Amino acid sequence: MTTGFQGDADMTRFIGVESLAAMVHEVGVDTFLRGLADYIEADFLRWSQFHKVPRHASHGDIGVVELMPISDDRLFGFKYVNGHPSNGRHNLLTVAAFGVLSDMATGYPRLMSEMTLLTALRTAATSALVARRLARPDSRVMAIIGLGAQSDFQALAFRALLGIERLRVYDIDPDSTAKFVRNMSARGFRIEVCDTSQDAVVGADIITTATADKRNATILSSNMVGAGVHINAIGGDCPGKTELQRDILSRAAVFVELEEQTRIEGELQQMPATFPVTEIWQVLAGMAEGRTDADQITLFDSVGFALEDFSALRYLDDLARDSSHVVEIDLIAAPSVPVDLFGLLEAHRAPVPLLAA
Amino acid sequence: MTTGFQGDADMTRFIGVESLAAMVHEVGVDTFLRGLADYIEADFLRWSQFHKVPRHASHGDIGVVELMPISDDRLFGFKYVNGHPSNGRHNLLTVAAFGVLSDMATGYPRLMSEMTLLTALRTAATSALVARRLARPDSRVMAIIGLGAQSDFQALAFRALLGIERLRVYDIDPDSTAKFVRNMSARGFRIEVCDTSQDAVVGADIITTATADKRNATILSSNMVGAGVHINAIGGDCPGKTELQRDILSRAAVFVELEEQTRIEGELQQMPATFPVTEIWQVLAGMAEGRTDADQITLFDSVGFALEDFSALRYLDDLARDSSHVVEIDLIAAPSVPVDLFGLLEAHRAPVPLLAA
Repeated sequence: MTTGFQGDADMTRFIGVESLAAMVHEVGVDTFLRGLADYIEADFLRWSQFHKVPRHASHGDIGVVELMPISDDRLFGFKYVNGHPSNGRHNLLTVAAFGVLSDMATGYPRLMSEMTLLTALRTAATSALVARRLARPDSRVMAIIGLGAQSDFQALAFRALLGIERLRVYDIDPDSTAKFVRNMSARGFRIEVCDTSQDAVVGADIITTATADKRNATILSSNMVGAGVHINAIGGDCPGKTELQRDILSRAAVFVELEEQTRIEGELQQMPATFPVTEIWQVLAGMAEGRTDADQITLFDSVGFALEDFSALRYLDDLARDSSHVVEIDLIAAPSVPVDLFGLLEAHRAPVPLLAA
Repeated sequence: MTTGFQGDADMTRFIGVESLAAMVHEVGVDTFLRGLADYIEADFLRWSQFHKVPRHASHGDIGVVELMPISDDRLFGFKYVNGHPSNGRHNLLTVAAFGVLSDMATGYPRLMSEMTLLTALRTAATSALVARRLARPDSRVMAIIGLGAQSDFQALAFRALLGIERLRVYDIDPDSTAKFVRNMSARGFRIEVCDTSQDAVVGADIITTATADKRNATILSSNMVGAGVHINAIGGDCPGKTELQRDILSRAAVFVELEEQTRIEGELQQMPATFPVTEIWQVLAGMAEGRTDADQITLFDSVGFALEDFSALRYLDDLARDSSHVVEIDLIAAPSVPVDLFGLLEAHRAPVPLLAA
């Protein structure tokens, strides 16, 4: 059911940018990331219970708006997300998002949340959750190539879930590098800033690639990748945008979220349709092998999947119960008698105060 | 662009149930309905500019949740709407909705609104807009069969757009009838309550059917429909739910919103795929004939189309500029430097006082 009733509306929980930030700090960012990873894992473990459908995309001249729905028997969730590379010029985000979680029993929305911050958090939690299964257990050093908006969250999640504290980092942009070093030094990481990506990967047990180039780039070439490394490839996430030389995929055991989606959007778009991959839910469920030996190269070709957004909304919905930072909005009308919708409108004919407390 | 900027967020206009009701009364319900009809007509007239796509439906055991997107080059809109016949048992609405309007140039949402009331208003405005073209110009009396949530809005829209003040009404449920008579008498209509639907249609120039039965019913049989009548059929709006005897369709000139949708959802589901219909935008644009003579039976087989929701959101967005009843919500994060999303989160680490001392 919905979270409340107030006057003429069934109230929906609303978590805006400020509320989400406050909720993260309320429990602490490490605890938040670990909790988020637990919810994502729990949902991956019941993979077959979800109705997974293609996203809906509305393409404009300079960008796209997408609706990503997913549901199980109990809950329906969707994320609204845009993709506008030119937004940076207006100091707007190229990707911004919000989402809604609803009860399938009534069809009523129970939670609406900002999802720009939340997507960054869930992407990092998913990466770390997968690396915890696929990276060598003795992994201590992570290289991060690409120090944009996602990189800080990746660092935090890998420390929270795998205990990684040593980072070797590289970005082509000095401002992004300075931003990362400033933020993460303050959070206690030991950071080595490198002059090249080749340098950054030296001695790394895990390599995270998270660059923003909208083209087929070679951020990581095969000769840079040694035995036993786990690669967490975040940046190759839409058609025409990849980061890894294809030889790396040939050498690696490749893991994906949803195979049919990753073949279109991921690093996998470089490989023939018959190239074998494993869906990560099978590894988490013990139905498929993850890493088989210490010398193997494992690769998580991550593009982001609606299930992770669903889990994030579900986590937030549970956290919101004990949080003082949630407000409610009157999204759904509640006439006292359902056939008398007009009566609800008429009841407001006299001036009413703008906001309830 | 978005409507404002506040601290760490690009603000989105939010129109909840209370705000919408207040905005309707701010301009007056008649003016609101006429304005709404103007926006709907304007959008029907530029029909080919819209990217029209099928709705996305998530079916559960006892209901459905739908996302209905539509866009032109400038704006993207979608409506979230549920359909849960069993909701009435919990005193919840069987159909409730909200919607979002976004800028295609940035992908950012500019307006979010409740759409339960708004859908009732836009459905009525569409009915009246179409009847203004198809009903005989000398129409004075309307029969309404089915006095549920939609009926009051229909009466108001037909008076606002066509000057109809005399109503002959019937509903199987005395409570619904009492509700309608109470609301609409107070609004100055001359109402004749009838004992049967047969009685209600006697002498009516326009017949509106708006019953809620979820099955193939015969609310209106062919012998009840005389020459020259305009039928506004609202209630047959999903597979397996119709109100009219099929002989009526055979005798009438039938008009629809989007042909492929109405063949599945409307009264038209009773007819063969070759049965001729006219899309109403063509009549409004002068590209197809509407009523050709005073004896013709015209029938608007209305199921509701995403374009009408888009027009309603657009109308609301324009009205909101001059309204004191709109609030803003922090749906979209706005880091001062786009790559420093974590910095935005971190800025909220210390408790922030709500108001400066």
